[in-house]
Amino acid sequence: MKNKKMPDFKHLLKDSRDLAQSTLLEELSPTSRLRQVIEYHYSASGSEARGSLCISASLALGLNSKVAIYLSAAVETLHNASLIQDDFQDQDEFRRGQLSVWKKFGSDIAINTTDLLIANAFALAASAAPNSANNLISTMKRAIAVTLQGQTNDLNIDQNLSIDDAILIAKEKSGPFFSLSLELPLVVAGQGEFLDVARQAGASFGIGYQIFDDLHDFDQDKNNGKLSNLSVLSDRTSTKETAEDLALYFLNDAATNAAALPNGCGSLLREKCSKLLSELNREAA
Amino acid sequence: MKNKKMPDFKHLLKDSRDLAQSTLLEELSPTSRLRQVIEYHYSASGSEARGSLCISASLALGLNSKVAIYLSAAVETLHNASLIQDDFQDQDEFRRGQLSVWKKFGSDIAINTTDLLIANAFALAASAAPNSANNLISTMKRAIAVTLQGQTNDLNIDQNLSIDDAILIAKEKSGPFFSLSLELPLVVAGQGEFLDVARQAGASFGIGYQIFDDLHDFDQDKNNGKLSNLSVLSDRTSTKETAEDLALYFLNDAATNAAALPNGCGSLLREKCSKLLSELNREAA
Repeated sequence: MKNKKMPDFKHLLKDSRDLAQSTLLEELSPTSRLRQVIEYHYSASGSEARGSLCISASLALGLNSKVAIYLSAAVETLHNASLIQDDFQDQDEFRRGQLSVWKKFGSDIAINTTDLLIANAFALAASAAPNSANNLISTMKRAIAVTLQGQTNDLNIDQNLSIDDAILIAKEKSGPFFSLSLELPLVVAGQGEFLDVARQAGASFGIGYQIFDDLHDFDQDKNNGKLSNLSVLSDRTSTKETAEDLALYFLNDAATNAAALPNGCGSLLREKCSKLLSELNREAA
Repeated sequence: MKNKKMPDFKHLLKDSRDLAQSTLLEELSPTSRLRQVIEYHYSASGSEARGSLCISASLALGLNSKVAIYLSAAVETLHNASLIQDDFQDQDEFRRGQLSVWKKFGSDIAINTTDLLIANAFALAASAAPNSANNLISTMKRAIAVTLQGQTNDLNIDQNLSIDDAILIAKEKSGPFFSLSLELPLVVAGQGEFLDVARQAGASFGIGYQIFDDLHDFDQDKNNGKLSNLSVLSDRTSTKETAEDLALYFLNDAATNAAALPNGCGSLLREKCSKLLSELNREAA
């Protein structure tokens, strides 16, 4: 059964990626510089974790393939916007094995591209289910506002950053787009009463994943001078075991909340939690 | 009659500005740095030309005050996003008599603020008329894409820029948000067949207004080294009279198209054209 389902799922993910790219190019003239940037950025693909979560949740909730593809494209488009912007703000020169957009085309064009991606994400979400468009749009706006608040607070951290502050920043920066992958299908399926649970699941996964990632890349990040807030804290004030405890706590919380979502629509997120948890146990052993 | 109507109109414009600000702050925590930026930027107001056009068109088309306020807030929010971003990209240090956002809070925060404004503009438009949300969102996305294309091409101009290229850039950079002020009310009023006329009116007004503005500020801009593309061209290859001829042509075209819109919903744009045309004639005389 699993083998039979997988190609279908991958097919939807590819359709979703193609849709995101074609709608981004819709209004652009053939010689537009922006068109070149979009084509360049989309020539290399990422993990599409958020898109996968969204398609999986959509299908579990009984939404049709078209809705699943549009919602997934919306979430992945927002994620791509955040990557292009983060790379510029962090001055990271590479993304997916090629030069990052700001490094290749300049900062101004990177910023303009980000704007276009954000606008397109809204258009994709609204087209997914016109009858739910207003709710989809306000759900998406909320996720963007929280993410931006986390990003902005991250730019203004001071020396006395507490572990709680660092967790809040990780939650706000990384959680909302994971949550959104579940929230958008829930909105279309008329299951709005589960939005808070989806937000909790996404927030805890965002924190847990961030700590996991930091632990994984700790030595490399430290050499590059790119330690995250949470890593700096565990380097300064805690043992590695404390960071692992935190990761375990949040990944377990994410899994519990994902399991509480209707129709098993959080099952892929639970699987992701289990995978990270088992890797943590292996590394800790 | 006119005196009786004016305070009401101004009242709607103020409600629209308050709505834009309160919805921008909706998800932000009391101590959020982004909140400070929003409050700072909105402490000084601009001309609200696009918001006025939008309210005027909405009322002419028989839409209620609430719809008018939401649509106007959406268009003005997009305009404010473009100002904050332009100031950063052009390294302009002042806006509305105070330091520009990037100068006061830094570039990264200015970029994050722009993202939040764009997201909020979509949320405002969708809330204006949930039944038309999908059409409103796609109309707005189109306007943003064209504006960004113009902005991006403007960043990449070469020495051999022709007058046609310069006009196209002015059209794409300045036209779409003027058009959008008319397009959104037309969408809600079910008058989608007039969108092309509204776009033509906005595009020609954008070009005409840009040339008018350039002519007006020519000496000052030249001293600052901030001549626009159209001004550089008229300085290099044409006489001032040619630039005036172009402005007359486009402002007349804008007025003609505005007059062709239903229910006199383009009458405020026509008034603006007439005002600029009479000033041009006075200056030319």
